[in-house]
Amino acid sequence: MRTVTKDNITDVFTAYFGDDTDPRVREVLAALARHIHDFAREVNLTHEEWNVGIDFLTRAGDITTPERQEFVLLSDVMGLSSLVDMLHSTPEATSSSVLGPFHVSNPPPLAIGGDMKGDFEGEVLLVEGTVRDTDGAPIAGAKLDIWQTAPNGLYSSQDENQHIHSFHGLMTTDENGRYAFTTVRPVSYTVPDDGPVGDILRAAGRHPWRPSHLHYIASADGHKTLVTEVFPDDDPYLDQDTVFGVRDDLVMTYVEEPAGSFPDGFDLSGKVDGPYSRVDFDLVLAKA
Amino acid sequence: MRTVTKDNITDVFTAYFGDDTDPRVREVLAALARHIHDFAREVNLTHEEWNVGIDFLTRAGDITTPERQEFVLLSDVMGLSSLVDMLHSTPEATSSSVLGPFHVSNPPPLAIGGDMKGDFEGEVLLVEGTVRDTDGAPIAGAKLDIWQTAPNGLYSSQDENQHIHSFHGLMTTDENGRYAFTTVRPVSYTVPDDGPVGDILRAAGRHPWRPSHLHYIASADGHKTLVTEVFPDDDPYLDQDTVFGVRDDLVMTYVEEPAGSFPDGFDLSGKVDGPYSRVDFDLVLAKA
Repeated sequence: MRTVTKDNITDVFTAYFGDDTDPRVREVLAALARHIHDFAREVNLTHEEWNVGIDFLTRAGDITTPERQEFVLLSDVMGLSSLVDMLHSTPEATSSSVLGPFHVSNPPPLAIGGDMKGDFEGEVLLVEGTVRDTDGAPIAGAKLDIWQTAPNGLYSSQDENQHIHSFHGLMTTDENGRYAFTTVRPVSYTVPDDGPVGDILRAAGRHPWRPSHLHYIASADGHKTLVTEVFPDDDPYLDQDTVFGVRDDLVMTYVEEPAGSFPDGFDLSGKVDGPYSRVDFDLVLAKA
Repeated sequence: MRTVTKDNITDVFTAYFGDDTDPRVREVLAALARHIHDFAREVNLTHEEWNVGIDFLTRAGDITTPERQEFVLLSDVMGLSSLVDMLHSTPEATSSSVLGPFHVSNPPPLAIGGDMKGDFEGEVLLVEGTVRDTDGAPIAGAKLDIWQTAPNGLYSSQDENQHIHSFHGLMTTDENGRYAFTTVRPVSYTVPDDGPVGDILRAAGRHPWRPSHLHYIASADGHKTLVTEVFPDDDPYLDQDTVFGVRDDLVMTYVEEPAGSFPDGFDLSGKVDGPYSRVDFDLVLAKA
């Protein structure tokens, strides 16, 4: 079309598609263009603001490495990552939550009753639960890929003083669908805010904190893989997670257990004399 | 808010703003988040598609250098750059059009009647016109920063065989607001399509071509600076400019002039024996 105007440009964009364009590509790109155009028209986006946007994306590209994914972080703090999770979660199953950028490949096996904290000091947390299907039947042999921050608030991939597999473990549920392990309580932490996404947070008057959590990827034959997190109900950032990851059914009470009550059947049995915390977190997987 | 859902996430995003957030930052970011969320909900964006998007942005960051700005190119082919131009153009003035990524700083002075083609071969094009204000009064001393591709379709910044100032010139209008120079006809060319933006064009069944054009940045004291282009009315890509830059009032007829008619008052006067082309392009600048 020769004469493009601010009012017809979305139609011109759509008219440019080739006849044999994949229908889904056409649907997604046309909707993306329409929303970008509507956004610019609604706010009457200026050249200066457009330049800020280009500069933002350029700086995000500059800071991004395999270890630091600023575009994922952008998606996280804009709420897009959580929204995509929620669009594809199954109502009868445990809610999904953000994967985040700190998962590592090939986590080490962690036996039921095993310990994930290694030599790290901190309040011992006993985590246990059952993996079930949406009919309530336990799933034996489900794989749970579990990870969290160290007590310093850093994941292994962020921290040169941790082994890459520190606070990572791959557990397989027993014949009753049960899993159990010990660790130390994860801590609240900040997403990386020393880059352009941090500039957005500061401009919006937002903090970079996430409530403390454990990450899970739960998978089992015949079931949808679930990426999720579990949060303690006393975390001060529970109502203001900067990446929008909290869901009601992922908030659990960490029960304080008295000294001398640590149960048998754990690597740490007989080694924990003082009080400790315990959280039960059952996971429900949808059928594939 | 503890429980974020796919339906309330935009409200949660808005609730996170600090009380003293700059009102314009709040307006732009809130609208951006709303459109991103609406887009994802409307197309039911999948994790796989989200991954394609993250990978796209990451690759765009990787390929971007001071000489190759893939994010600007993305904005161009999505129509955003042109839309921002159109949102801020003045109806009584000449339409603005895309700046593009190939402008260079400190163009060399070009006297009225001067030649911009240097030693390059090609069909001689005589360009002349008047710069006026919206009342029709000529503007003396207006600055015209003019640039174009060489006959090989490359701008100087893309072409190691051209001097950086090749096909760039800075002209000052005379007391009658007039400017005039000679060059060779610019050619249709493709935007760089060997990166992730090229993948978008191919997926959408679109070509990477732009109709041939001359670029102008026109500035004068007391007037809004105008960034624009002029296109010949016989270019095959006029109705399908891949960056949406064509406006009705920027399309001009290149008149073919007979041999022996080349006028006096040009550096090339007496040197052009054969036919040549001429285009008149007047520019109207809005008051600041």
